[in-house]
Amino acid sequence: MAYQAPLRDMKFVLDAVVGLDEIVEMPPFVAADLETVFGALDEAARFVQDQVAPLNEIGDQIGSVRNADGSVTTPPGFKEAYRQFVEAGWSAVPVPEEFGGHGFPLLVGTVVMEMLNAANMAWTLCPLLTQSAIDALIHHGTPEQQATYLPNLLTGQWSGTMNLTEAHAGSDVGALRTRAEPADDGSWRIKGTKIFITYGEHDMAENIIHMVLARTPGSPPGTKGISLFIVPKFLVNEDGSVGERNDVFCASLEHKMGIHGSPTAVMHYGENSEGAVGYMIGSENEGMRAMFTMMNGARLAVGNEGLGIADRAYQQAVIFAQERHQGRAIGSTESSPIIDHPDVRRMLMTMKAYIEAMRCVIYADAAFIDRSIGAATVEERTSASHLAALFTPISKAWCSDLGCEVASLALQVHGGMGFIEETGAAQHYRDARIAPIYEGTNGIQAIDLVMRKLPLENGDVIAGLITDVRDTVDSLAHRPNLASKLRSAVDAVETATAHLMASLPNDPNQALAGATPFLRLLGTVLGGHFMGQSLVAAESLADARDGDQEFLEAKIATASFYLDQLLPQAIGLVDAIVAPDEALFAIEPKYLVG
Amino acid sequence: MAYQAPLRDMKFVLDAVVGLDEIVEMPPFVAADLETVFGALDEAARFVQDQVAPLNEIGDQIGSVRNADGSVTTPPGFKEAYRQFVEAGWSAVPVPEEFGGHGFPLLVGTVVMEMLNAANMAWTLCPLLTQSAIDALIHHGTPEQQATYLPNLLTGQWSGTMNLTEAHAGSDVGALRTRAEPADDGSWRIKGTKIFITYGEHDMAENIIHMVLARTPGSPPGTKGISLFIVPKFLVNEDGSVGERNDVFCASLEHKMGIHGSPTAVMHYGENSEGAVGYMIGSENEGMRAMFTMMNGARLAVGNEGLGIADRAYQQAVIFAQERHQGRAIGSTESSPIIDHPDVRRMLMTMKAYIEAMRCVIYADAAFIDRSIGAATVEERTSASHLAALFTPISKAWCSDLGCEVASLALQVHGGMGFIEETGAAQHYRDARIAPIYEGTNGIQAIDLVMRKLPLENGDVIAGLITDVRDTVDSLAHRPNLASKLRSAVDAVETATAHLMASLPNDPNQALAGATPFLRLLGTVLGGHFMGQSLVAAESLADARDGDQEFLEAKIATASFYLDQLLPQAIGLVDAIVAPDEALFAIEPKYLVG
Repeated sequence: MAYQAPLRDMKFVLDAVVGLDEIVEMPPFVAADLETVFGALDEAARFVQDQVAPLNEIGDQIGSVRNADGSVTTPPGFKEAYRQFVEAGWSAVPVPEEFGGHGFPLLVGTVVMEMLNAANMAWTLCPLLTQSAIDALIHHGTPEQQATYLPNLLTGQWSGTMNLTEAHAGSDVGALRTRAEPADDGSWRIKGTKIFITYGEHDMAENIIHMVLARTPGSPPGTKGISLFIVPKFLVNEDGSVGERNDVFCASLEHKMGIHGSPTAVMHYGENSEGAVGYMIGSENEGMRAMFTMMNGARLAVGNEGLGIADRAYQQAVIFAQERHQGRAIGSTESSPIIDHPDVRRMLMTMKAYIEAMRCVIYADAAFIDRSIGAATVEERTSASHLAALFTPISKAWCSDLGCEVASLALQVHGGMGFIEETGAAQHYRDARIAPIYEGTNGIQAIDLVMRKLPLENGDVIAGLITDVRDTVDSLAHRPNLASKLRSAVDAVETATAHLMASLPNDPNQALAGATPFLRLLGTVLGGHFMGQSLVAAESLADARDGDQEFLEAKIATASFYLDQLLPQAIGLVDAIVAPDEALFAIEPKYLVG
Repeated sequence: MAYQAPLRDMKFVLDAVVGLDEIVEMPPFVAADLETVFGALDEAARFVQDQVAPLNEIGDQIGSVRNADGSVTTPPGFKEAYRQFVEAGWSAVPVPEEFGGHGFPLLVGTVVMEMLNAANMAWTLCPLLTQSAIDALIHHGTPEQQATYLPNLLTGQWSGTMNLTEAHAGSDVGALRTRAEPADDGSWRIKGTKIFITYGEHDMAENIIHMVLARTPGSPPGTKGISLFIVPKFLVNEDGSVGERNDVFCASLEHKMGIHGSPTAVMHYGENSEGAVGYMIGSENEGMRAMFTMMNGARLAVGNEGLGIADRAYQQAVIFAQERHQGRAIGSTESSPIIDHPDVRRMLMTMKAYIEAMRCVIYADAAFIDRSIGAATVEERTSASHLAALFTPISKAWCSDLGCEVASLALQVHGGMGFIEETGAAQHYRDARIAPIYEGTNGIQAIDLVMRKLPLENGDVIAGLITDVRDTVDSLAHRPNLASKLRSAVDAVETATAHLMASLPNDPNQALAGATPFLRLLGTVLGGHFMGQSLVAAESLADARDGDQEFLEAKIATASFYLDQLLPQAIGLVDAIVAPDEALFAIEPKYLVG
């Protein structure tokens, strides 16, 4: 099925909701002006639609395959599309010019990534991980390391990976056992096995720059004793050319439910030698800090996967619902396209409304990150940084959960055909399901939100956000029904926040117990906040006859639907948030079954 | 992963919630007494756990395969397990003794089917479809047809199928085109292609008795012109032995996302002849009525699939959560099993509570069907029949949706391992997803509930049910918090019902628009009703020291969790139910994308 980048809505959100016009005026982003950005997005859409989207299905069917020599062959077409991606320079979009990037805001890179995720989530994981390695180098690398690795990572000729997980260290990164021993020349020798390494081995890039967490001798236990190392697949010669093969090999690929095109590798470091050659990046025992730099960007990127795949699945469902005729709608004398049935239309409107709300949340998060770098005053930058910190777990978890739910609705629209693999709806459903798991499970995101983000600035960050939502309520005074629903919803957030904040100091288990329903509530309410803003902006543009009237009317209808019909479903989550945590532990594990 | 039939909870629901003790006293079920029934369930559990459950994974991996000659080979072990199923006589459990069955209530057969679904949903589809064919023969067959087909269907030596769907006739059965021409000998010749035929061809039974919907010459269009035919794979000789091969062949098998073990066939009827030999069952043009007899049982059975697979997935998650250690729970000085983390425990409690609520709804539905046959007075039988009619779409849709949601939570508990196929969690997630689709999509169920079931007896049936829930509220007076939540929830049902009933006569689109959220609301509230009854019953048994105290305390905790934390989430659905249907149609289809 074809994918069409939703450029009108993307530009609407950029323009009318998250303030791209302000961001492109900020000094770090002088390279970007609105016209250039919108032109780049049009171009990206063409590339993504024509080159990347058509490979989604074959990527699923054939998957990446490990060969006997440990090399990995990606699905037909992946390599060629990647070469074109490199040639067009898409990899460097959101990287500062001082490092050789295009100097565009992360916001613009995020829009391009939404398109890529929608087109082909499995393929897009390769540039996504490369971006993480770039982030680590920019923030923690020495000038020499930056000079050695950044240029080819920026073009995408080399790709990157993140190596955290080991068999006994998943969510609990601190339990990892991979060891790094110092060598005489200042480099390190890495020994250990990492699992779930996305694009750990593949044939699309000339070199792979692995970012590997490991323990140095005598390091303290847990996360405080972890350092980060650069471990290139091929060592880099002094002249920058690709040199000797390093002792890092793909031992096997996982057999996964989805994202078959993306090779998920078990990686052996130093199995055939004293250790793979690695270079410490950042300070010893500061690896988790560096990794968090990468993870925050990656978490936003995974939320963006939820958005992208939701939109792809939705578009396919809309087409199917117009083509498939079954039964007669009320008042019709002949067979109706199923889109005329209210229940089908409800599924489509639900998908559309959640997608547009997710788009606002994801773009707003990226815009906060841009403002945290580019805003004029230190206060504005700090405030934006805090909001980005608060938004990141919501972007990741709320949008990845909704990605699965929207993909499920899209499958349902197809009826029996949805369960047949040839239709493609099932692939979206399978692919989407990884996003709530990796880059920190959604449970971990909820814990991060409640334990680390609510207490930011003694609660002033969430309090300020609640005030912002109340401003949106005020702006909806002319739509009293919608204003009232958003008010009830933000009241619920305030109640829940107060309960969690009160629990945090002395009863953290109580706060942990409410974390997941709280994240869902807050995500849904922030979606309502942005949909309310979208509604007001669209009304104003429509009144001024400024823009595509059909699009603006659709936006008003979709935002109204969200506020009127979806938002109220979240309010009942408060009961779960404030319930005593003992209720979760009332049953001994051995009595849970039987 | 092993499966353990939850016999304690099954017996609790039978005993304390749905009144098996009353049902076994009814004349049609004299063969069953409580001791016999409970003994049979223990025996069924052993068979299912030992013989059927271990085949679930290999069934997924290898799947059913069509051979060049059109025959189908089921996965290794399926045939042997089926042979044992036949030998043990499990197929005939809920069939009246007059037809050669064991004369047990459907309720008991439903419990056995829950176990089978949990153990191996793909395998269990074969006996499930056979049961549908048995139902059709019992209710609509002539004595000769019953004598010819029932004995071997009852043992399971022959299996059955339902043939409704054609490429252009899915939800819209009335659009089907398969034709039946009369032959000189009173039989018919069937020509056409059916799709999505579960166990349409396989190697587990000696013969396959297809129940096929087709049109006779001159029949009226739509569902009023459809007749039902028996089309055996092998014609049956006068002495009852298996005779000549009929012209019905499997043209291909679908490549599905899940239930790989179950062959889903495209069936060609009469491709190589004047038509496959068929025998009309019931009257001409009355096929839909007959098919509804089969569908109602099948819809309850599909809801039971949601329950079964949810329980299987849950059990696996509980085991994993006890074995997997990650991080430290609050107050712990060493690595904790993840079950000690509140967020994981919330997932497990949510699964457990929904499963136990589903079990009540499914068993109650089966019990209503039994009472509709066996109750003493015509009033009681009619009332039970109406309640079964009202419950059936809820059993099907609410439980199949929850089956997917519980399987998703179970996958999430596994973290990254959940996305790897070897773990098994992904299979449950994939398998469960068909249940909201087949036997009438869940949207169709919601429409059935609102359009046909709410108006039963001018609304007295739903009104009576609401009164029953209010009685449960009263019985919870000693738990005022829980009583209050159930009261708010049933108030929401009453509001929503009044709105829908008022819309039905003149504005059916308005009722249709609210159907799906209404079904979800009513299902959740009925779950709360039964969990409230369970709580009261468990308290009373615990006070009397009558039964396993640990189990009863767990039941009280689970029911409290459901009423306190899950039930309130449904109340916000009212907003969607009462919203104007125009909100769904505000956007022209061509503006839905972009």
